[in-house]
Amino acid sequence: MDAAQLSLNQITTRGWSLPEAVDGCVQAGIGWIGLWRDKVAETGLEESVRLLRDAGVGVSSLCRGGFFPAESADERRRVRADNRRAVDEAAALGTDVLVLVCGGLADGDVTRSREMVAEGIAELAPYAGERSVKLAIEPLHPLFCADRSVIVTLAQALDLAERFPADQVGVVVDTFHVWWDPTVEADIARAGERILSLQVGDWLDPLPDLLLGRGMMGDRVIDFRPLRAAVERAGCTEPVGVKIFNRAIWDRPGEEVVRELRDRFADLIA
Amino acid sequence: MDAAQLSLNQITTRGWSLPEAVDGCVQAGIGWIGLWRDKVAETGLEESVRLLRDAGVGVSSLCRGGFFPAESADERRRVRADNRRAVDEAAALGTDVLVLVCGGLADGDVTRSREMVAEGIAELAPYAGERSVKLAIEPLHPLFCADRSVIVTLAQALDLAERFPADQVGVVVDTFHVWWDPTVEADIARAGERILSLQVGDWLDPLPDLLLGRGMMGDRVIDFRPLRAAVERAGCTEPVGVKIFNRAIWDRPGEEVVRELRDRFADLIA
Repeated sequence: MDAAQLSLNQITTRGWSLPEAVDGCVQAGIGWIGLWRDKVAETGLEESVRLLRDAGVGVSSLCRGGFFPAESADERRRVRADNRRAVDEAAALGTDVLVLVCGGLADGDVTRSREMVAEGIAELAPYAGERSVKLAIEPLHPLFCADRSVIVTLAQALDLAERFPADQVGVVVDTFHVWWDPTVEADIARAGERILSLQVGDWLDPLPDLLLGRGMMGDRVIDFRPLRAAVERAGCTEPVGVKIFNRAIWDRPGEEVVRELRDRFADLIA
Repeated sequence: MDAAQLSLNQITTRGWSLPEAVDGCVQAGIGWIGLWRDKVAETGLEESVRLLRDAGVGVSSLCRGGFFPAESADERRRVRADNRRAVDEAAALGTDVLVLVCGGLADGDVTRSREMVAEGIAELAPYAGERSVKLAIEPLHPLFCADRSVIVTLAQALDLAERFPADQVGVVVDTFHVWWDPTVEADIARAGERILSLQVGDWLDPLPDLLLGRGMMGDRVIDFRPLRAAVERAGCTEPVGVKIFNRAIWDRPGEEVVRELRDRFADLIA
């Protein structure tokens, strides 16, 4: 796999606007980008579509919908409307993958919060399907169970995804979130066509920060090749995204970060 | 369950010496204590045994053995000798439970590190069994997979424990470490007699510190009763330990902490 099959997740170069990130991909020969809604909004949806088309950069996914658990009916309505807009934006941007970060605890009740996630997806999936957008459930590291995602393992994400048609709901595998899981390779095999995206980023030890302490591939503990191979064996041929939340990386020039991640990818994963 | 069936894990009142902790239990009517080896060493093994016997405080467990993954033969020998001493100390202190924190990554290889844990337990279990001490594998939160324990789920701990006789190897269920796990209640049911101890402590959100940011029960998100009920249904009648790594709690007077945890226990768990 060469850089043309690599996808820059926009969060990795958070200092860049959407036009800068698209240009950064072109300069580095990276063929795909994983967009974030706030960056698209900043540039404007139509202008973003035009820029991407002119540059010939494909959109591998849009981040993100989700955050389903809600403590009031008002909040639930707001979330539903926002998730439908996210689907519309994904469709307009020409990607068929909307990443879902499902949301943390509502009312401190983990069981009920998980039900709310299932209800939210059940409500959103047909709407997404009609627009040829798939919902990609991203299990987050259990570290984030309280505040970001009560969906914390790939097995759990699959149990949920499998309640829906495969052309409506799948999963994201992000190495940072799943590397510790003793059953992850078996779960990837089980996932098969449900895997809509592989995202890579390293786990640092010690962890410098709970949210913004993820690492560039090769900086620490994750062995990427077995996970990548498992995802390929499962039949996933989508571009591989590089997604790193790290303040120190955000503070570096984007061009340098992109060159580095492209080289690390070639050395450690491709 | 009254306080006589409660166990103070010594790490919760880390500022206290062993004699102070034993006296603290007596004053609060707490019948059991979970000892730490460094505190026992500070007071001396024989003196500790005498103090505990005179006070009528039972030893529910000794923390800790483990840390099996090792990067050299020398290190492996050192670990083996230290783990045998831990078993001897548990036997001398009159507890049949030695808690194992299994250790993080050796050589950055999670698969090999997990094999090293299994090999270490296979080597230690018969030695422990001959001394009527059970090895209690404690799955740690996946947060600690790199640096403290490659055993990160109760299901994984059980897969490992079940390779050995139940009178040699079991598991510890610590609410802080397992609360996020979507299969934890099913795993507790499966564990049955393998559960050697239930430990309680809360998950704070936001987490104030990776290692020392655990919470007093009731301070945040964990719903203790369902986990406690599942452990009881599984047949575990051991004293429930309160184990909280928290710098702010360590800085408070021990008497106050012990009163608070006894009251919180009565309100939220018993």
